[in-house]
Amino acid sequence: ATVFRASEHQHIRYNPLQEEWVLVSAHRMKRPWQGQVEPPLLQTVPRHDPRNPLCPGATRANGEVNPHYDSTFLFDNDFPALQPDAPNPGPSDHPLFQAEAARGVCKVMCFHPWSDVTLPLMSVPEIRAVVDAWASVTEELGAQYPWVQIFENKGAMMGCSNPHPHCQVWASSFLPDVAQREERSQRAYQSQHGEPLLMEYGRQELLRKERLVLTSEHWLVLVPFWAVWPFQTLLLPRRHVRRLPELTPAERDDLASIMKKLLTKYDNLFETSFPYSMGWHGAPTGSEAGANWDHWQLHAHYYPPLLRSATVRKFMVGYEMLAQAQRDLTPEQMSSSCSGLSRVLVAVATA
Amino acid sequence: ATVFRASEHQHIRYNPLQEEWVLVSAHRMKRPWQGQVEPPLLQTVPRHDPRNPLCPGATRANGEVNPHYDSTFLFDNDFPALQPDAPNPGPSDHPLFQAEAARGVCKVMCFHPWSDVTLPLMSVPEIRAVVDAWASVTEELGAQYPWVQIFENKGAMMGCSNPHPHCQVWASSFLPDVAQREERSQRAYQSQHGEPLLMEYGRQELLRKERLVLTSEHWLVLVPFWAVWPFQTLLLPRRHVRRLPELTPAERDDLASIMKKLLTKYDNLFETSFPYSMGWHGAPTGSEAGANWDHWQLHAHYYPPLLRSATVRKFMVGYEMLAQAQRDLTPEQMSSSCSGLSRVLVAVATA
Ligand SMILES: O=P(O)(O)O[C@H]1O[C@H](CO)[C@@H](O)[C@H](O)[C@H]1O
Ligand SMILES: O=P(O)(O)O[C@H]1O[C@H](CO)[C@@H](O)[C@H](O)[C@H]1O
Repeated sequence: ATVFRASEHQHIRYNPLQEEWVLVSAHRMKRPWQGQVEPPLLQTVPRHDPRNPLCPGATRANGEVNPHYDSTFLFDNDFPALQPDAPNPGPSDHPLFQAEAARGVCKVMCFHPWSDVTLPLMSVPEIRAVVDAWASVTEELGAQYPWVQIFENKGAMMGCSNPHPHCQVWASSFLPDVAQREERSQRAYQSQHGEPLLMEYGRQELLRKERLVLTSEHWLVLVPFWAVWPFQTLLLPRRHVRRLPELTPAERDDLASIMKKLLTKYDNLFETSFPYSMGWHGAPTGSEAGANWDHWQLHAHYYPPLLRSATVRKFMVGYEMLAQAQRDLTPEQMSSSCSGLSRVLVAVATA
Repeated sequence: ATVFRASEHQHIRYNPLQEEWVLVSAHRMKRPWQGQVEPPLLQTVPRHDPRNPLCPGATRANGEVNPHYDSTFLFDNDFPALQPDAPNPGPSDHPLFQAEAARGVCKVMCFHPWSDVTLPLMSVPEIRAVVDAWASVTEELGAQYPWVQIFENKGAMMGCSNPHPHCQVWASSFLPDVAQREERSQRAYQSQHGEPLLMEYGRQELLRKERLVLTSEHWLVLVPFWAVWPFQTLLLPRRHVRRLPELTPAERDDLASIMKKLLTKYDNLFETSFPYSMGWHGAPTGSEAGANWDHWQLHAHYYPPLLRSATVRKFMVGYEMLAQAQRDLTPEQMSSSCSGLSRVLVAVATA
């Protein structure tokens, strides 16, 4: 009988954090690509554009004028998907027609006053200011809302409609779907094994050394065993930390530094300003924040769409939408293609 | 207190079939769009191109020559994600590192000998031949495999790399993730309510008349209450049918006719050859096909990416990947914008 090799033979893997399976078919990378090619990503963006509503001093859609900020800048999204005062849809009249109330706020956070930089081109102290702003907004909105979702859509390919470096923060009165799944899986793991799922997972990856991308004093970056996107990574603190505001000053500095390294590797991979969606997951907040959330471990997910080059992406379409996620190279192959690649790529402009 | 109106006030809705929530924020359609614009979809495709491996008489990647087919044509995918003989990864050594065997086959089905047609431009008898071919391939591969996933990726935006009208069929030795969720939810509904979830759901939509797009003697097309994609639809038989091969000749003719009408509406919506991924779900097959699958109702999902025009799509990115699906108009608004729109749009060429 043939000996199983993950890099040759298709198989399925389980994501115990989000309770999903993925089909891994490494041999599919051999297939030629004649499909859609994305527009090239390297664009010249002016450092300051007074008509860009994210720039210092610019006027936004609601008529407000931005301050001349020189670090991060947080403001209310002018077209929010969540508003604080939506009425309740009322009780459902049928089990197949269930609707519930959704309240919340949507904010935008600029990372830097210049439009022509990205996180990997910013200095470590500048990125540290972003980490501090993430911790503060989690604290501020987490006082009222059970879930504060920080996420960055980077690049036009990821639906980002403004090149100025920024992320979004959507806080909601409900635990979103993915948060519910991570809550369920981490709670069950803790009650069965007596320790947090992601603490054990990080330790195992440090032992196995097959999927590590970066390690530092306080952080790990790895390609999860169950990764779906070709170059997906998971960023984990080494210490048991439930939420961003708990990070110590040393952990925050180290986070800024490992993020710069990770994003620089990403930019180098296809020599482009690497697109992705990323976001933070930590223990729920709001009125239940004081409950026992020890089964939670803070982490960030990076989901980049590119597959083969700066202009050829992975499409999560037909089979993936109708049946199951599918990837064309193994997570292990991905982490090894990221070793090296530490040169800062001046992809957009010199910061 | 303000009266709740779904078209004005954000809320969340539950998908009881796939066990997921969606955030509905109708007011977001007011937001201006400055992000990525897709290349226009209307291309001139030659009716026959001897270098296109999907055309009659063309030579494929493996050296085989296609027959001069004049209706549908089924062949093995030259770059399959699933192969019949992959070895087993063996037992997992840790609960966080679970891998299992995956075996299967991937086929490609051409709908028509001409490259310059799409399903809505084909005649009803030509579409009926496609329905028959779907039923046969389900029967053929279902004899061996528990799941036969038929899906069509249409348009470059949906990762389709060949304009020739075709779909794919991936049969697997495992129940894919989405199939598992639909199995669980339909089984639970039947045991609690004594009838199939989708039979009751179709009946309710016929009574409520808020989300119907098309009805015919044997079929319904509706925008599900829990739709995620802006113009997502669900195609359901009126009779309790578990799998495609069970469809009667009259139901097959009527299916061909309602598909032509639905896809014509889609083409008219933004006056383009409307991109989508679609696929069929029916009761599991394989060695367990004889078990009781009465809780299953055959259905097709249509997932089209466009949001505002032929070139502006909905991006399922940051919040959607990290937290929860989100839509910018209500399912009810969508179904009403589809009424009318029945002119056959000669989007690609005259068939
Ligand atoms: O098989 P194709 O058409 O080359 O590829 C397309 O459909 C597949 C199945 O949905 C996806 O995995 C690919 O990402 C997509 O590009
Ligand atoms: O809010 P933005 O940046 O305009 O919009 C982008 O991110 C949102 C949150 O992930 C998505 O819902 C939109 O589809 C996407 O275009």
